[in-house]
Amino acid sequence: MSTSHWLDQIKWNADGLVAAIAQDAKSGRVLMMAWMNRESLELSLKEGRAIYWSRSRQQLWRKGESSGHVQNLLDIALDCDGDALLMQVEQLGGIACHTGRESCFYRGLKDQQWQSREEVIRDPESIYQDKT
Amino acid sequence: MSTSHWLDQIKWNADGLVAAIAQDAKSGRVLMMAWMNRESLELSLKEGRAIYWSRSRQQLWRKGESSGHVQNLLDIALDCDGDALLMQVEQLGGIACHTGRESCFYRGLKDQQWQSREEVIRDPESIYQDKT
Repeated sequence: MSTSHWLDQIKWNADGLVAAIAQDAKSGRVLMMAWMNRESLELSLKEGRAIYWSRSRQQLWRKGESSGHVQNLLDIALDCDGDALLMQVEQLGGIACHTGRESCFYRGLKDQQWQSREEVIRDPESIYQDKT
Repeated sequence: MSTSHWLDQIKWNADGLVAAIAQDAKSGRVLMMAWMNRESLELSLKEGRAIYWSRSRQQLWRKGESSGHVQNLLDIALDCDGDALLMQVEQLGGIACHTGRESCFYRGLKDQQWQSREEVIRDPESIYQDKT
């Protein structure tokens, strides 16, 4: 049987990235969507935690390295056309978003504006103050 | 208060698209990730169903128009950096994937290969035979 390397089965975009969605394995809540390159995906699987590629900083982004809000990787799935990953994670601290909310998807459409509809669990300043 | 149009609050990518994740509102299952442009997002809200932008066909993709597997839109959320949408949907037919599976994320990593680990609910040929 002819098989290709599992990393080559992924349809990397022009920037060499694939979309990665993190879902809380316990609550089912979709926490965030970010991007991975080959190295970050390999490292995620090797280390058992979500490691993204930061497009703004152009470097590996070990989720939780500053905040402590590590995402332990429990499962990973690839979609039918190979350009999106879905991870089941254990979200340490119960906070995925840098705003201190559980999920990054905290804005709903109300009165023709995107407005926050979720509480801040922890003040971002207290999250990052000792970790810079 | 100075406010911008809700469509301008979205961080469209270089191709004028935003990632859109569909989650089954009842089961919590993440069904698929696709892309929307301004027109498809506006139409999704107007018509109350997921309408994507097909990058391969470069045209509006009214999810379910061939298969009948329409996604009724119950809720939509925007993430913190404005480049991803999360939709809660009612998945008609219980099938989101063109392969006849519930979710497009049906492949897991096993023996260093992405392998299907979910059953086909309905043969794709029977899904699309009368609808082409």
